[in-house]
This record gives sequence, structure tokens and C-alpha cells, in this order.
Amino acid sequence: MRIDGESRQSIWYQLDEDRVYIIDQTLLPHRLEIRSLENLADVLAAISGMQVRGAPLIGVTAAYGIYLALREDPESLDSALGELAATRPTAVNLRWALQRCADQLAAVPIEQRVGEALQLAQLMEKEDIAICESIGEHGAELLNEIWLGKKETQSKLNILTHCNAGSLATVDWGTALAVIYKAAARGIPVHVWVDETRPRNQGAALTCWELAQNGIDHTLIVDNAGGHLMQTGEVDLCLVGSDRTAVNGDFCNKIGTYLKAVAAADCEIPFYVAFPVSTIDFSATEGLAAVTIEQRAAEEVTHIQGMLASGELGQLALAPEGTAASNFGFDITPARLVTAHITERGVVAPTAEAILSLAS
Amino acid sequence: MRIDGESRQSIWYQLDEDRVYIIDQTLLPHRLEIRSLENLADVLAAISGMQVRGAPLIGVTAAYGIYLALREDPESLDSALGELAATRPTAVNLRWALQRCADQLAAVPIEQRVGEALQLAQLMEKEDIAICESIGEHGAELLNEIWLGKKETQSKLNILTHCNAGSLATVDWGTALAVIYKAAARGIPVHVWVDETRPRNQGAALTCWELAQNGIDHTLIVDNAGGHLMQTGEVDLCLVGSDRTAVNGDFCNKIGTYLKAVAAADCEIPFYVAFPVSTIDFSATEGLAAVTIEQRAAEEVTHIQGMLASGELGQLALAPEGTAASNFGFDITPARLVTAHITERGVVAPTAEAILSLAS
Repeated sequence: MRIDGESRQSIWYQLDEDRVYIIDQTLLPHRLEIRSLENLADVLAAISGMQVRGAPLIGVTAAYGIYLALREDPESLDSALGELAATRPTAVNLRWALQRCADQLAAVPIEQRVGEALQLAQLMEKEDIAICESIGEHGAELLNEIWLGKKETQSKLNILTHCNAGSLATVDWGTALAVIYKAAARGIPVHVWVDETRPRNQGAALTCWELAQNGIDHTLIVDNAGGHLMQTGEVDLCLVGSDRTAVNGDFCNKIGTYLKAVAAADCEIPFYVAFPVSTIDFSATEGLAAVTIEQRAAEEVTHIQGMLASGELGQLALAPEGTAASNFGFDITPARLVTAHITERGVVAPTAEAILSLAS
Repeated sequence: MRIDGESRQSIWYQLDEDRVYIIDQTLLPHRLEIRSLENLADVLAAISGMQVRGAPLIGVTAAYGIYLALREDPESLDSALGELAATRPTAVNLRWALQRCADQLAAVPIEQRVGEALQLAQLMEKEDIAICESIGEHGAELLNEIWLGKKETQSKLNILTHCNAGSLATVDWGTALAVIYKAAARGIPVHVWVDETRPRNQGAALTCWELAQNGIDHTLIVDNAGGHLMQTGEVDLCLVGSDRTAVNGDFCNKIGTYLKAVAAADCEIPFYVAFPVSTIDFSATEGLAAVTIEQRAAEEVTHIQGMLASGELGQLALAPEGTAASNFGFDITPARLVTAHITERGVVAPTAEAILSLAS
């Protein structure tokens, strides 16, 4: 992605310093701060505290976490795998990335594991970029077909997105936003309706920021507004990411995704989900009812953070003191509300047959 | 409603001072400040700036606005009607209240209009309270029937509400919340899921506050969360207000209402709308497509207000500087998603035949 005109990633390894760097996403859009992850504890804190978030980015960060853990203690593979797995329960990429580390590193003599772990993390970083670009290309082809049917009667292709499934949710490019970046690169005049995505406002804070940095036309809306825009013809398609996709095509994504999907179906607007194949939970053949939906702190609902007029970051109370709040992080959208899934291996129907065909 | 243990109204006329008082709802829940409305300009500012909001309360406030205008200038009826009508375009009660003032006062000699206007405003204030109590009683009967079918298997009746259709949206009692207050008074163990209701957070700020003041069990949620709660059996019914109801049963309410209604239908959860008959737009026989949906300032989306840790009120920026935002205040929910309408004249099906029967 472009940041202040330069090409950047959400996470990278600096060879000459032997150091892993991330963008601290809890401070965006108000401050761009780079943090180094020095050890496993830093990685655990960065994932739990959502300095890095987004299923693919969490996976790559966890792989670097294994490297940093082994650099400190080459015998700590098992404990590091366990601690990293416990940071966020819902996204399947984390589990997938850790399984890949476990499979590959357990087979290697302990004295070679550190070097192997670094190579694996670097490989997963590079692969993630290539996968996201491929998701973007497949999706842009789809958007181009839709645009060909609209361009005679409208000046923009209006896309509604929820949360941040962008460069900041991956190493680079993103999933849903990769589709938008690649479509824009083809000359399709995209305009993005950005759900602010309470409670943590990843849409307002992250998606608006990266779309602005990359020159994509967009308008911020509250999460309540998308239905009205769909009813009044202002949305041509919805496009979101996924944290976990079941074999039957159901998917788990940021809380509120289901509300947009059910409205899109009611308004006969196509609803697309973009994700890497690593997001598919091939053990979930009948849907995601058994998945643990992460519950986060009530303070994320009763309070909000942002930038004061002084330029300093601050926090506000929004509700009466002592108000009880519930804070589920994700919801599950049934496959029947999905038009198609967009992956690095192509665009597929939300059916078990199509999804299983991606496994090879 | 109870406030700090005392019985209070959202608006009242103090006879010995010849003065109209309101609770400034822009400062709740952090500060309880009472403001006097001294003249028409104060009333216009209070309605536009949402110190008073909620369709029924706006109507009664406008009636007092006519009185205050005539007290200053007995010949200003026409101009005052026009200025008040322009403050908020969507709620039909404002138009209804002003039409009632126009009809009654235009027939009175100018020198008698001031006294007549005060009497009319006081009458509308009293009527609003009685109407809301009656809505509450009819709705509580309905909730009692629902509860009888649930009480063997659950300990609470879980109701999801959006925005504030409470005492603070009326002179007293509310519409949707009147039903809840009356149900609680009958001993039904109600628990309310309160949508925070971005962008102005009337749920977090007003509904949580008045439910707490009146001892009703409740939990605050972000607007994104209701779908997940409905999918997982945590919502027994949805209950909202209406700013304008069409003869065909479609209704216009706070932005985001449609998203909850379409999810409720998808999850087969009953969806009820509580409003006074004065909210019905009898000219809207075919629905509300022609209604002007109020658009408010982008800053309500890009910024948010609340209470700083210091106890002072403050404002935060949530999005990158210069972000474009769209801010429609209402959406329209089609009658096919409504289970029943709850009015002071009874509970009716969302059909033209039933709604027209309320007109008499």
C-alpha cells in the first residue's frame, strides 16, 4: 500500500537489524507509529491489543512470533504455539499459521529451528502478498463485469464494505480492498461506502485512512446507514472479508456483517466475500455454530477513543457510568445470503462442492 | 418518569413563572441540565439542535413554540408555523401539531390567540401523557401474552430497542419504552438490549439513562450486535418507535431500524412498532417513498461527543481529517417486516384496513 506516497507493508522484517516491525493500528488514523516486536511477549500483546488485526495479518504476525520465541529459547516451540493460539479465538488463519509452523518446525532439529522459523515467517509474508494480489485480480474481473452492465447509466460503481479487510488486515493489498484497488487500477470508477464498524471503528479509522492514502473515492457512514443506502439504489454491491469460512459457505466476520448481508438479500444487491483459502475451516462442514465468538471488554462499547481538538488522543464515556454492555466481536452470515466467495484460486459459489474444490 | 427518584417530564410549563422548561437532551447522560425556552428562537434552536427530540416531544414543544411566538407578537402565527415546520422535515407529529395549532388559532381573534395557544399547548402536553400511557397498557398486554409462552423456559423477556422511544422522546412514558415500563409494572421480568444508535447515540446516552433511572434491567450493545443476538436466541422481540407511519403500514424511524427489522424477519422474531395515532401520515397511502429523509451534518459521523475522564464534556475525531461522510437520519421499514403496530387505540396489523380504522 501507499503511505505518504511510499510503498509500505503492515508487517516487515528488517534483515540488517534482525527485527520485526509493525504499524500500530490502535493509533491510526491519528498517528502513524511503527513498533518493533522484540520477543514473544511483544507479539502476544500486539495481537491481543489489536495493534495488528485482520485474519491474514494475525497469521503472519504469529509466524514471526514463533521465530522471536525460538530466538529467545529454541526449546519453546510448544509453549509459544499455545500462547499465540490463545490470543484471539475466532480467526482461523491464526490456527492455520500456527499449525503450519508446528508441522514444519517440529520435524527440524532444535538447533536449526530458529533459522527455519525465520525463513517460514518470511515465506508466509511473501505468500500473503501474492495471495492478496490474486484475490484482488479475480475480484476485479468480477467487478469489471458488473461495471460493464452499469456504466451506461451511472458514473461510479458503489461498493459497501464493513470493517477493514484492507492492506492493514493483511501484509499488503488486503482481501476485500485488494479487489477495490485492482478494480481502480483497471480504471473502474469505484466509490466505497465505509461502515464505521463500531465498537472499534476499524472502518472509520483504518479503511478511510488507507483508501485516502491510496486515492480511492470513499464516504464514511455509520453502521446503521447501509440499509437505507441499499434501499435507495446507492449500493451496487457489498464486499467484505472473512475471518473464518465454513465448507458449507457460511462465514464468520466482524460483528454487523450479517445485518448488511440480510439487507442486501432483501434489496437484491449482490454480496461478495473475499478471503484467502487459509481462512477456510475445512473441519467446519456444517457451518460455524460451534465456533467460539470472541467477547471483548465492555469498555469498547461504553467508551470510545479518538483525537481531541488539541491533537492528543483521548477517550470519552458514551453511556451512564456503570452501564452493562455486551461486546461480541463477530457474527456468522449464512451462505444463502452470499452471492459468491472471492479467493486467490478464483470466484466460487457459496456451496460445499465449490469450496472443497479450493482445497487442492 | 423518575429522575433521581422524583417524578419528572421532558417538557413542562411553570405557571407562576409563565415559562416553558425542557431537559437539555444533548448533555445527557453526563449532565442533567434544565433549560427555559423564552421565545420562538429558543424553541427553533432546541428542536434543530436536538435539545428536544422524538416525534411526540417535538410536536408538543412546537405547540409551546407557537405560544411563545404569539406572546412576543400576537400577529406572528403564520411566520411561526412556517419557521417551526422547517426545523425537522421527517417526523409527522411536528406537522400534525402545527396543523392543529393553525386550525384552532386561526379561527380565534388575534387578541385572544396568546391565551388560546397556551391552553392548546397545555392540552397537547396532557394528551401526550395519556396517549403514551395507553400505548404502554396495550403493549404490556401483548408482552404479557408473549411472556406467558416463555416463562417456563427462561428467566427474562429479552427486548431489543433502537434509538430512544422513551419518556425523553415524549412528554412522559414514551412509546416503545412505555410498553416496557408498563410491562415491568405488571411484574414481567423485562431485559432490554439497547442499540447505542449512532451517530448521535440516543440509545447509549438517553435510553440507558432513563432505563437506569427507572430501574429497568438493560444491556448496551453496538448497532452491529443485534443480528448476532437474534440469531442466537437472545432476543424475544424487537420494539421500536416511529416518526411517521404510512397508511399501508410502512414506517419511518431512526436510521438503522430497517436493518433490525429485516434481521428479525430472517430470524422469525416478532417486530413491534409503538407510536401515537398522530404519527400516522394519512396522506401517505402507498408508503413513504416520497418523504424527505433528513440529512444532518457530516460532523455527527466523523466526530463524537461524550465525557472525558476529567468529567468535562468533550469531542473526538474518529476519522482522518477531511473524510467525507453521509448522514441520513432515518430509514423506512416496509410493513411486511412488521408484526404489529401498538397505538393508544390498540394493537393493529400493519395493513391499510387496520390503520385506517384508527382514524376515527
